[in-house]
Amino acid sequence: MPSSTTAPAAKPMAMSIEHRLSDEAVIRLPSLLKQAFKHFKNPGVISLGGGLPLPSMFSFNKISAESPAPPFAHGIAADPHTLGQDITVTNIAKYPEDLEHPMDVPLESSLQYGTAQGPDQVLKFLRDHNNLIHNIAFQDWDIVCTSGNTQGWYALLRTLCNPGDVILAEEFSFTSAIQTAQGNRLTVVPVKVDLEGIIPETLATQLDNWVGPKPKLLYTIPTGQNPTGCTLSNERRQQIYTIAQKHDIFIVEDEPYYFLQMAKYDSDRAQRETANHNPAQSEFIKGLANSFLTYDVDGRVIRLDSFSKVLAPGVRFGWIVAQKALVDRIIPFQEISSQLLCGFSQSLINGLLQRWGQEGYISYLIKLREEYTNKRDAALDAIETHLPREVAEWIAPDAGMFFWIKVHAAKFGMDRFNTEFNNDPRKVEEYIYMKAVDKGCLVIPGHWFAVNEQTNPPQKTIEISEDDRSALYFRGTFASASAEDLDKAIKIFGDVLREEFHL
Amino acid sequence: MPSSTTAPAAKPMAMSIEHRLSDEAVIRLPSLLKQAFKHFKNPGVISLGGGLPLPSMFSFNKISAESPAPPFAHGIAADPHTLGQDITVTNIAKYPEDLEHPMDVPLESSLQYGTAQGPDQVLKFLRDHNNLIHNIAFQDWDIVCTSGNTQGWYALLRTLCNPGDVILAEEFSFTSAIQTAQGNRLTVVPVKVDLEGIIPETLATQLDNWVGPKPKLLYTIPTGQNPTGCTLSNERRQQIYTIAQKHDIFIVEDEPYYFLQMAKYDSDRAQRETANHNPAQSEFIKGLANSFLTYDVDGRVIRLDSFSKVLAPGVRFGWIVAQKALVDRIIPFQEISSQLLCGFSQSLINGLLQRWGQEGYISYLIKLREEYTNKRDAALDAIETHLPREVAEWIAPDAGMFFWIKVHAAKFGMDRFNTEFNNDPRKVEEYIYMKAVDKGCLVIPGHWFAVNEQTNPPQKTIEISEDDRSALYFRGTFASASAEDLDKAIKIFGDVLREEFHL
Repeated sequence: MPSSTTAPAAKPMAMSIEHRLSDEAVIRLPSLLKQAFKHFKNPGVISLGGGLPLPSMFSFNKISAESPAPPFAHGIAADPHTLGQDITVTNIAKYPEDLEHPMDVPLESSLQYGTAQGPDQVLKFLRDHNNLIHNIAFQDWDIVCTSGNTQGWYALLRTLCNPGDVILAEEFSFTSAIQTAQGNRLTVVPVKVDLEGIIPETLATQLDNWVGPKPKLLYTIPTGQNPTGCTLSNERRQQIYTIAQKHDIFIVEDEPYYFLQMAKYDSDRAQRETANHNPAQSEFIKGLANSFLTYDVDGRVIRLDSFSKVLAPGVRFGWIVAQKALVDRIIPFQEISSQLLCGFSQSLINGLLQRWGQEGYISYLIKLREEYTNKRDAALDAIETHLPREVAEWIAPDAGMFFWIKVHAAKFGMDRFNTEFNNDPRKVEEYIYMKAVDKGCLVIPGHWFAVNEQTNPPQKTIEISEDDRSALYFRGTFASASAEDLDKAIKIFGDVLREEFHL
Repeated sequence: MPSSTTAPAAKPMAMSIEHRLSDEAVIRLPSLLKQAFKHFKNPGVISLGGGLPLPSMFSFNKISAESPAPPFAHGIAADPHTLGQDITVTNIAKYPEDLEHPMDVPLESSLQYGTAQGPDQVLKFLRDHNNLIHNIAFQDWDIVCTSGNTQGWYALLRTLCNPGDVILAEEFSFTSAIQTAQGNRLTVVPVKVDLEGIIPETLATQLDNWVGPKPKLLYTIPTGQNPTGCTLSNERRQQIYTIAQKHDIFIVEDEPYYFLQMAKYDSDRAQRETANHNPAQSEFIKGLANSFLTYDVDGRVIRLDSFSKVLAPGVRFGWIVAQKALVDRIIPFQEISSQLLCGFSQSLINGLLQRWGQEGYISYLIKLREEYTNKRDAALDAIETHLPREVAEWIAPDAGMFFWIKVHAAKFGMDRFNTEFNNDPRKVEEYIYMKAVDKGCLVIPGHWFAVNEQTNPPQKTIEISEDDRSALYFRGTFASASAEDLDKAIKIFGDVLREEFHL
């Protein structure tokens, strides 16, 4: 009997990926031994099945860590002697007392063979976290843990792409991710960007005029992009999603810098004091850029997420959010390669998150935002003070670790550009890079991040303006230097530009 | 001027691998960003180069672990409250005091981005360990860390093999390793084994009569093989190496169970007390089976080594020993996939090893030998007591975690074998497996470990005897159950055999 009131429309289910998998993913077999696992847990059966050492033989009785603790009133880097919290996780075979926290992953589990998807406790925390932060537009999503976004990206490529497949990436991108793709014998075709990221209209034109097999996916770093530091606006994200739908391609959002979103840069330091206050949790969450998952009614977005920039790079703990059918195809890849997350990371990262709770974690992220805002401000203050606007151009980054300086080589004197550097902006970049290093400042030449087009047949060439043709780029980071050193180094870079451009 | 005395012959250098690499390994590019690393360390240069978070921002101030300590007089699993040692590794940005141990890997390094090869401190320990245990026959070998042997095996396959290549493996082998190879679209051809492992003569015949492209490598678990539990004799190792030389194939020795080599089984318990004494360190080392590296004058052996069975599986810490040119090709693969070892593992495993020292580690391994000898003895005592020799056959394993029972289905009554089970020993295995599970004992059917031949064109068939054709196999482990449970479970299995074979 039809109801007279309309129920709220349920979210759609994700599209089928069966015909979108790599040949390799199709032939990956589920583990036969796993069939026996159901009996392992039957208390009436003595298992001589799995080759699992007894936990009483593990070389670690217990591990502990000291970490900062909410409310982080004194900052993340504050004196730990007074402000830390202790996490202790025991091996129950050696210390049969109860766990310190009911949601801990004890050592007898984390240091044993286990599930490639990740421990249940962490998966629960991450699912709750996702529900808190992202309003994913389709129903059937899931999570698989990775040992960081590079490993997640590798696993994903082996699940979706065959050698020879084509993928898209921002024309300047994270070199290691591009090398991962090229190492898998994929062709990476660059997508034009401006100082605000991928230009939807240009992407649409590029795909509408595509020659040969369509690209499988678009790889993008939407927030605090590496190397350009820019963050895609929500409007551009929505437009890019619609283009991906039209051409039926996946979007892979690599989002390690997502929680390094900051207050907008304000060159007026007095104003800044007011603006940079720490927002309330709901305000903080509302202010974050939208994940592509927010628009994803098809289940064509894959999010690569990581604790590397949030907790520490060496924890080697990331995760993939994607439609469940895809996650279920990635798990068997993890089983035949990295197998499982390092157990110390399982116990300690989970231990940290469970003690902080969702609210404590958000308060940590808000504090992180403040610290990165301050660092970015120090860098931008120095850039505004020291770089010559006559030849250099930049946009204050709203996220991430990087600033990106565009320098107009044409203003360098076209004569010198043409003769001394053979009309090649890359050579000018290298020259200025070495000049700056000699004087004590290291920034990276932009062309080191350039994605070279190697398509065959070549795509219709995107118009390149004279301005673009002679553009130089340099990437700097504000993450790893003090405010004082940032000022000193950027002044050196400015001096080099002034000297070389005779300003 | 020629010397009149002959210098001791230097060890040979490894053969060239340039033409033996996968297509993918050849195109893997060295990281451009690494070019800038030399400047990162120049104190006169302020680096705004690498996207490295400041260690003061890491969420871990210090970590500690409690582990057993030498001389392990009371066993590894003894009461930790009185016999443990503490390892504390600090983040110098939070605790600027000196390191607890001069060879520690501090958190500001292990939790930061770093080298894919592994931290220097661990590499030094492992190189010294190798020199102590193995007399590698060629000069130029090196080590790269992995997150366990499955990951190491995966990395190696991507460096040596192209899709479609053929490799060899024992006809019963570690399922996950075979799936890793098949997941890389390799064809795995089984090599015939008897209860002592690969039969050199059969391997020689197989290769002499090979049809089509030769196999690239032989994958073998020489010591405490999984699933058969057998250990190749040094004589067979030497012979197999010579065959590999003749046919120019690599040997990959996967040796997770190497240090689970035990005293020989003696069914006379009184004798045993004398025989199972803990040997002196030099005697212990001398008694270990030879690595294939001992014979490897060509640099064609690749050793996969791991702490999984020695310290704990979840530490996810392994390493590859191979000729340096090959190691140098594997490192860039690590860079584009798993990137680096989990930092907690770097600091804690290194911390453990440095505090134990080489001698302490060997004394730990000797104690481990004692514990596994006792477990194996308990299993074998039960097997000798409870299994019907009329239909079952076994060899007491000298290493590893597994025992392997051969059962003659022909003795089952050929009528029943032919009619009820359609002449298929696999069906009989499944039937007996389920019968045993129902009664409370889980052992794994041998055919779950069978490597199926999928070669095209098919190789010349190796003669299979009637005895082989009707052989059933079952794998059990003695690692994960108590002596009492081992006896109970094996008695159940024996009862099932007696009942089904009407004994």
